[in-house]
Amino acid sequence: MSGVILTLNAGSSSLKFAVFDDTGPSASPILGGKITSIGRDPAFAGRDASGRALDAGAFGALDLSMDHEDMIARLLPWLDTHHGDRPLQVVGHRVVHGGQRHDGPTRITDDVLAELDALAPLAPLHQPHNLAAIRAVALWQPDLPQIACFDTSFHRSQDRLAQLFALPRALSDEGILRYGFHGLSYDYISGVLPAHLGEKANGRVIVAHLGNGSSMCAMQGRKSVATTMGFTALDGLMMGRRSGTIDPGVILYLMQAKGMTASDIEDLLYRQSGLAGVSGISNNMQVLLESNASPAREAIELYCYRAASALAGLVPAIGGLDALVFTAGIGENAPVIRQKICDHLGWLGITLDPQANARNEVSISAPDAPVQVLALPTNEEAVVARACRDFVA
Amino acid sequence: MSGVILTLNAGSSSLKFAVFDDTGPSASPILGGKITSIGRDPAFAGRDASGRALDAGAFGALDLSMDHEDMIARLLPWLDTHHGDRPLQVVGHRVVHGGQRHDGPTRITDDVLAELDALAPLAPLHQPHNLAAIRAVALWQPDLPQIACFDTSFHRSQDRLAQLFALPRALSDEGILRYGFHGLSYDYISGVLPAHLGEKANGRVIVAHLGNGSSMCAMQGRKSVATTMGFTALDGLMMGRRSGTIDPGVILYLMQAKGMTASDIEDLLYRQSGLAGVSGISNNMQVLLESNASPAREAIELYCYRAASALAGLVPAIGGLDALVFTAGIGENAPVIRQKICDHLGWLGITLDPQANARNEVSISAPDAPVQVLALPTNEEAVVARACRDFVA
Repeated sequence: MSGVILTLNAGSSSLKFAVFDDTGPSASPILGGKITSIGRDPAFAGRDASGRALDAGAFGALDLSMDHEDMIARLLPWLDTHHGDRPLQVVGHRVVHGGQRHDGPTRITDDVLAELDALAPLAPLHQPHNLAAIRAVALWQPDLPQIACFDTSFHRSQDRLAQLFALPRALSDEGILRYGFHGLSYDYISGVLPAHLGEKANGRVIVAHLGNGSSMCAMQGRKSVATTMGFTALDGLMMGRRSGTIDPGVILYLMQAKGMTASDIEDLLYRQSGLAGVSGISNNMQVLLESNASPAREAIELYCYRAASALAGLVPAIGGLDALVFTAGIGENAPVIRQKICDHLGWLGITLDPQANARNEVSISAPDAPVQVLALPTNEEAVVARACRDFVA
Repeated sequence: MSGVILTLNAGSSSLKFAVFDDTGPSASPILGGKITSIGRDPAFAGRDASGRALDAGAFGALDLSMDHEDMIARLLPWLDTHHGDRPLQVVGHRVVHGGQRHDGPTRITDDVLAELDALAPLAPLHQPHNLAAIRAVALWQPDLPQIACFDTSFHRSQDRLAQLFALPRALSDEGILRYGFHGLSYDYISGVLPAHLGEKANGRVIVAHLGNGSSMCAMQGRKSVATTMGFTALDGLMMGRRSGTIDPGVILYLMQAKGMTASDIEDLLYRQSGLAGVSGISNNMQVLLESNASPAREAIELYCYRAASALAGLVPAIGGLDALVFTAGIGENAPVIRQKICDHLGWLGITLDPQANARNEVSISAPDAPVQVLALPTNEEAVVARACRDFVA
């Protein structure tokens, strides 16, 4: 009898889960959902294979004292009641760091876990939650195989120049490098490109993953050549609450002239900046698009101006552009944002078909435009599920 | 009888001076020179109008206890012996900050000086030296008019989007904005563009000021639209000793995981990084170009890769590119660097004529290339002298 696969994606204040068949190529889960606002105002939402909402009441009451491990301790037995008597074969996790050592999915052993623990200082806001999820599963069912899929692995195809900061060699040698993130998303998009672009899929493609966290990846031969996020997920594009790239002299000024501490600055750049900081209204693009306030409009214009500039800055790495793909929450669902970004890029051969764009079609470029532009859904869970199926097979 | 003008450019460890006629359009000084390595190993070098070296011995011995003010106290009477009986009419200074309030050259009064003093925290490594030079001149000859020419004024034509960081509005409102620098150099190049480009001078032009400090400026109608340096001169391109743009998460990591202080990080990013840090050999491009060591080659390749990426990132601001101008030490004199940068930019319509480039000709693009590429000498002193002549007139 066939079994099931569980994928877990533990973010800084969220936990996403999905259950898949352990055979077959389906990218759609049997059920899935997420727990959001952990530590603040936790809420559960789940859906079955048909998209029908599952009963949140049956999941049980959540309170703000519950951490990621508590949520997983609640989730796992609840899941048991939903996949019937088909056994859970393997759990796959999205893990931020580890990709510099492992260029693909890796079975978690005590040694691997110790190694991933040692990487926590590289991503103190994310890596510990990823590992807490692994430990919670091990506590519940010690013999269940677990697989780590690293967000950084996809970028290991990059040349050294794309990974280097202009810092003293000793710092580069000890690992202060541009790792890049959103690797599972780029991996998924890379996999579906041939179905949409044919031969051009192996050409020069930029994928814009625009969600609450945003980054871009320049690909050639469907492999990562350069990306906008660097050593951390703070680099590159302006995001919902994150500043993206900022003059390092600003940080020195905040410390030296305004007496801010490292943790003040971390809070400022990770949580008070981006769309939320510029608008003073919201980190949510949809809310800003519905606002008439001029700070909301300015935040949107800055987001799009900076996205266009970052996109152009990636083009030298691949020597031109054949296709552009928008994905993730904003990239898939905000035609106005796609239009505004592309309005800065006509000189690059990018012209949208306004009707196709407004209807969120897959192919949204004007028929005669040199650069093909697509809007595609991403599916990080499907990439983790694929790795789990490969393990079970 | 006509008099003379003195221009002073006080850097962090150097003092450049030039004496001009106070009438006529000449951009060439009657004499000029510089004192370098102030505070370390000071040395004087001067040349007369014909380019002949002046006697350093007559300038007097310098020692490392002498600061910028001591140097000016030595320079001014020495200059008196060189411009004969033609009176000194006005002194013009390059000043880093002040351009956000003054969009052009400004006569220095006590009020203006107090205002410029208040801006010192914005550029603690530069602004105090600029103001020390002004005070030293006032001490020597209190009634001599002095003019400040701001490195930031040229960029005041930029739209707000080009000036904003994705920070909370309150920080933007208090002046944490992208000011841009090298304004006197861009002003000079902007002025000579029509002689070289004709009508195209008013089109979409990027000027690459590549010296020990490096930045780029995107112009339209010969006005600044966007630039790579931001709040400080640390932002943007990789430089001789400066990191340029770096993931802000790296700075948080250096503080939180490695216990570095603000002043450690300032020293790291301003003095230990860039070409010097990546090569481990030198901050001097000429030295690196003559080296066979692989870290030297890597530093050069990273400098050029990043310059190409930054250049491309400016293009959306001006909607395409008609011409590219290289200037300053590296830009004027290093054909290999120009070639390596342009090798990343063929897709943008940039192709060099290898012979013209190797000979450091003014026009160095291939005859049929869509984007015209020039190598032009810059002359910041001439811009200051022009402002002084306008004052005297």
